[in-house]
Amino acid sequence: MHAVRALLTRHPQRVVCVLLQRDRHDERALQIERLALASARPVQRIDAERLTARLGNVAHQGVAAEIEALAPWGEEQLLAAVTQSPLSHHEPLLLALDGVQDPHNLGACLRTADACGALAVIVPRDRAAPLNATARKVAAGAAESTPVAVVTNLARALRLLKDAGLWVVGAEAQASTRVQDADLTGPRVLVLGAEGTGLRSLTRRHCDWLVRLPAMGAVESLNVSVAAGMLLYEALRQRAAGIA
Amino acid sequence: MHAVRALLTRHPQRVVCVLLQRDRHDERALQIERLALASARPVQRIDAERLTARLGNVAHQGVAAEIEALAPWGEEQLLAAVTQSPLSHHEPLLLALDGVQDPHNLGACLRTADACGALAVIVPRDRAAPLNATARKVAAGAAESTPVAVVTNLARALRLLKDAGLWVVGAEAQASTRVQDADLTGPRVLVLGAEGTGLRSLTRRHCDWLVRLPAMGAVESLNVSVAAGMLLYEALRQRAAGIA
Repeated sequence: MHAVRALLTRHPQRVVCVLLQRDRHDERALQIERLALASARPVQRIDAERLTARLGNVAHQGVAAEIEALAPWGEEQLLAAVTQSPLSHHEPLLLALDGVQDPHNLGACLRTADACGALAVIVPRDRAAPLNATARKVAAGAAESTPVAVVTNLARALRLLKDAGLWVVGAEAQASTRVQDADLTGPRVLVLGAEGTGLRSLTRRHCDWLVRLPAMGAVESLNVSVAAGMLLYEALRQRAAGIA
Repeated sequence: MHAVRALLTRHPQRVVCVLLQRDRHDERALQIERLALASARPVQRIDAERLTARLGNVAHQGVAAEIEALAPWGEEQLLAAVTQSPLSHHEPLLLALDGVQDPHNLGACLRTADACGALAVIVPRDRAAPLNATARKVAAGAAESTPVAVVTNLARALRLLKDAGLWVVGAEAQASTRVQDADLTGPRVLVLGAEGTGLRSLTRRHCDWLVRLPAMGAVESLNVSVAAGMLLYEALRQRAAGIA
């Protein structure tokens, strides 16, 4: 239910068809139906038995979607998604990883970014972990839901995103501003460096703000996916505070 | 520097001796010296070359500590630590894991809890991941710094901690209270269930509050160590707000 709704909200163009159990007419099912129609995605009502058979005995809540496989984005797709961002209730929120070389960490960050509703995870083509089988497994399905944008030059991509109206917020242990004192409610790119080495100086220079997490005092104290979770949590907390 | 200061603050009894580089007289080094003296721990001033030689070429900041190996705590040590909590600036903050069976996840939670200054991580003796070599490796040193309290009966341990003045806060996707709306500034035990299954009903009944994280909507969407990071981040954020 959640996964289909998230896809229809964030990436409707990837939904080939929505399958809804024939006898589901509750508010959550109808919401899915409305979202699909708003993006001109076909909705097919089918019997519960047929749905179960078609999903190969996977647990479902009476809803499924046929989707196109998710290829990595390039710079252009990233910018198009940021400027269009259709049907989204929120300002774009992106996660950029500067030099995270371990596929486990990429997968864990992707899973966390997906759970937090980030639009995409940005990685540089060189000096970055590949989105391989290990990363996909650790991502636990998130690799099919949240795109990885592979860019040739991270500094250039950040500059283009700034031109598109996003603010770039880098996390650094030595920053004087606490993350909770930075405004994360608008369109933002959150940037994390590799464990141990942190942000590269060129990346740091493209940040509008540098912020620190409360637990970043100890060198290498936080796993990068845990740091990503804290940053994204804080952004969601601030965004939710507006509609509390 | 940070690790030695944390040990002297949280577990001074485990420090056998503090080694300080002879020519370090800056404020951070003097603070370490004062903390050691306040707990009657011996401080030895030694030459930089001897310190480096003794640490076997490990990078250091002019400070090291000889410590006693950290054995798992039982229920009594846990309660003693909570009620004594000497020299700590903060109210006790504990993390309890209900049925986390994967040593990777235990290690990752331990690392996160350590970075966030939690007093200990509580796990039930049965149905829990062992603190084995895998868990210690993933914990990246945290297993030598933050104790794991192994209890026979988690519900009983939570009851005893409540009797000692702590409030028990469980994380659950269906909770109606958002974590940011719960007061985490006092003495607290934060409880997380296993991915997928969540809190056991007996554990849930011992929670004073149930709270949800913004990203807990999707089933199994968050890795347990990332969820732990978000919970602990929120507790630290609230605690820091008081002294901002």
